[in-house]
Amino acid sequence: MIFSTLEIKGDSPIYEQIEKHIEKAIQTGALIKDSKLPSTRETSSVLKVSRNTVMTAYENLESRGIIYSVKGKGSFVKIANQSSDQGIQIDWSKKLSHYGTTCENMDIIKTEYRYEKGMISFKSIAPEGNLFDTEEFKRAFLDVISMEGEKLLNYGYAQGYRRLIDYLMEYMQGKGVELKDKDILVTNGFTEGLDILLSAYTVPGDKVICEMPTHHTTIKMMKAYGLEIIGVSMDEQGVRVDELAEKIIEHQPKWIYLTPSYQNPTGIVMSPERRREVYKVLIQYKMTCIEDGFNEELLYSGSHVMPLIALSGSSNNIIYLGSLSKILFPGLRLGWIMADKNCISILESVKRAKNIHTSFLDQAIFVQYMSSGAFERYVKKVRKYYRDRYLFMIEEIKKYIPYKKIYGEGGLHVYITLNDNIDTRELLEQCYARGVLFMPGDIFMANQSRTSSLRLGFGKLEHHEIVSGLKIISEEIQRFTNDK
Amino acid sequence: MIFSTLEIKGDSPIYEQIEKHIEKAIQTGALIKDSKLPSTRETSSVLKVSRNTVMTAYENLESRGIIYSVKGKGSFVKIANQSSDQGIQIDWSKKLSHYGTTCENMDIIKTEYRYEKGMISFKSIAPEGNLFDTEEFKRAFLDVISMEGEKLLNYGYAQGYRRLIDYLMEYMQGKGVELKDKDILVTNGFTEGLDILLSAYTVPGDKVICEMPTHHTTIKMMKAYGLEIIGVSMDEQGVRVDELAEKIIEHQPKWIYLTPSYQNPTGIVMSPERRREVYKVLIQYKMTCIEDGFNEELLYSGSHVMPLIALSGSSNNIIYLGSLSKILFPGLRLGWIMADKNCISILESVKRAKNIHTSFLDQAIFVQYMSSGAFERYVKKVRKYYRDRYLFMIEEIKKYIPYKKIYGEGGLHVYITLNDNIDTRELLEQCYARGVLFMPGDIFMANQSRTSSLRLGFGKLEHHEIVSGLKIISEEIQRFTNDK
Repeated sequence: MIFSTLEIKGDSPIYEQIEKHIEKAIQTGALIKDSKLPSTRETSSVLKVSRNTVMTAYENLESRGIIYSVKGKGSFVKIANQSSDQGIQIDWSKKLSHYGTTCENMDIIKTEYRYEKGMISFKSIAPEGNLFDTEEFKRAFLDVISMEGEKLLNYGYAQGYRRLIDYLMEYMQGKGVELKDKDILVTNGFTEGLDILLSAYTVPGDKVICEMPTHHTTIKMMKAYGLEIIGVSMDEQGVRVDELAEKIIEHQPKWIYLTPSYQNPTGIVMSPERRREVYKVLIQYKMTCIEDGFNEELLYSGSHVMPLIALSGSSNNIIYLGSLSKILFPGLRLGWIMADKNCISILESVKRAKNIHTSFLDQAIFVQYMSSGAFERYVKKVRKYYRDRYLFMIEEIKKYIPYKKIYGEGGLHVYITLNDNIDTRELLEQCYARGVLFMPGDIFMANQSRTSSLRLGFGKLEHHEIVSGLKIISEEIQRFTNDK
Repeated sequence: MIFSTLEIKGDSPIYEQIEKHIEKAIQTGALIKDSKLPSTRETSSVLKVSRNTVMTAYENLESRGIIYSVKGKGSFVKIANQSSDQGIQIDWSKKLSHYGTTCENMDIIKTEYRYEKGMISFKSIAPEGNLFDTEEFKRAFLDVISMEGEKLLNYGYAQGYRRLIDYLMEYMQGKGVELKDKDILVTNGFTEGLDILLSAYTVPGDKVICEMPTHHTTIKMMKAYGLEIIGVSMDEQGVRVDELAEKIIEHQPKWIYLTPSYQNPTGIVMSPERRREVYKVLIQYKMTCIEDGFNEELLYSGSHVMPLIALSGSSNNIIYLGSLSKILFPGLRLGWIMADKNCISILESVKRAKNIHTSFLDQAIFVQYMSSGAFERYVKKVRKYYRDRYLFMIEEIKKYIPYKKIYGEGGLHVYITLNDNIDTRELLEQCYARGVLFMPGDIFMANQSRTSSLRLGFGKLEHHEIVSGLKIISEEIQRFTNDK
């Protein structure tokens, strides 16, 4: 009650004291614009003064433009406090750290051409939402909310929701990982997994070896953390082993970062033999390695291709970043880190210092959905779906695009090196004018150097869009070739 | 198909070539333990050799202990690859950055006494889950999932879910904030909001002024980022203005971090007048300020107490960290940053570099729940609930605890300075032995210095637990006093 701090004194008219009290309350922010004043009846009773006195005060305030009254509703504050007069303006872009600046400057959502309605965009590698089984998802929600709703909505644990951790441990065992002395931390997707790792285990100036080209987000994050990226090239089997060994000897990097399956952007799936060879090099030079398990679930199994962490047996030098969200429910942002249990224990503290824990509701729905058998059914369905789309894509590229090489074995994107030495950054400019978007190769280079390569994502495109888009790219390539 | 890479040659028996091929596949990881081999029929057809030859190969492998067969099911790999023999062991605790080390060392979940079943814990300031309206929450879920399920489960935007942003803008306007040139970023709770800010806007060595004592998580995060914390003391109205001005002049800090409502741990609600005075100092010295909106929703309104960001009018020097999750659904981890729109645009890029975005499902359910009117009903209910519990708590403390001062005006905790100069860290040790836990004051000091203060959270405790717990604390204080 605004008047509880007003002590009526004898030295001035009471109505004036009431007026001043209200004005002061507005100035100090105790009363804000449009807030309701106590009724005259209430005020008179609290202050033990006549109601007429209060009415006089309110009338004066109204006539001075400080309050207004609404019939049948009462009196309200009309003016805002005056602080804005003496304000200051900070230039927030000038106060950024190296980290903040890099995140901003390398944010391709801001720097790249934007999709507009009606365009054909090969930019995205997001999955097709129509394939999501929302009915099954709904059922999973209802199951978990009725089983343990209150628990899920209250604070959880930084490491993650126990059932999900157990599920993921078993899931990784299915990929051939030796579970002894390993543990899992649940994260907000792959990106947070990498963020947690980089913040806990790198300092500015550290060197990291990556396949080149590589995932733009990874390049951005590593640069934001001040790391120096050393690129190693790839052939069709994956990263080149001899070059990897050479660069390790030359640079003594702190980390090796590899994406063995559907490498982004090339789509190369590292062969089992190559994985073996790479792992031998890691062991030989006692290297710690971040394995990005990107889209591994889309591998058309039969013969199972093991992740590096499975090859590593009881060694503890591989940290695996898992995420199902590239194909399933990316909106939920769920991923995990699998590593040595002592390492996970530390990363759990880092996770706690970043955001306490990942949504327990999301984790619970997710594991309920996964263990219901819906995931196997879904994966089967989408494998076929994206496989068909991929094969169609390859067929059409062969028809329209004068390529030197098409990389990739599936997944949600292909990567093309053009036959002629065309700067795909310039090509994009032309294509964009005609409503077609793709990712030019320079985005995936640590030094952003121009390339004649481009990445085409196709997860969400219809056949007719793929054809129209490729035709336009083809025509624009033709123009470049003719100009030469 | 594991045999698609086998070319039968003329130089050795075919069954031997098949055996060697399988052994190599196991060694390279192409076949893992317990994976199924193609049937003999299938293999013979792929390799175009007789089925008997294949059966011989499989029998030899089985007798050599490399595969096993299950009747009616087929043949499976028995051994794991041998990589573990040549393994390496990394000591992960030795590779940490300053950031990682600090997060680990200051993780009170690990360093403090753990709650065990049957204990009375005043440690937690989590809300009482029984109060959550899970039925209304379920309804909100069903509404949003049927309206836009696929969209919510696919990638969203770093800034947040549009409806939630709009809701929060209006919500903040209701607190008196001038919306012009302001914007909002949705975060995974308060903690992530602070993490984003500190990473984007501080570098090691920067100085930050905080109320002292202050929120442990804040101290931990600032130290992890290498910041120097300058403490300013408080009186019952909030942070001391003269001391604040002095410390600003002396240290020229980069930031001021303040928690005006239910300051953690003291529970002090900064008075409207004090907020005004503090804001004047901020303006005078052109200071940027992080305002932690902690538990503001529990303020027993009537006269509205404005946050600093509302007092700042059209100035842009206050960055407000909001979170409803201290009282509502902490398991979802939802919070927001409100600031100058240019600042938010940068922080949006930082958010994207950390975890792409916050769960769109959670954001959608949350705003649906909020706008249904369920939130107002809930807040009304919990305000009364926690108010009653708070008043009971105060009453009982006065009965049992020889206090110098009880701080706080409500919220979910109280803070007590004991009458005698008892080290509450030592007191905790005694109490823990008797099954009672609380937060000793040193946890909230930047330099972790011992105090005679303690924080008692009561959100989840029954009346009889409060009484029993306080009695034990009281008896242990008595023992200290007697020992003197």
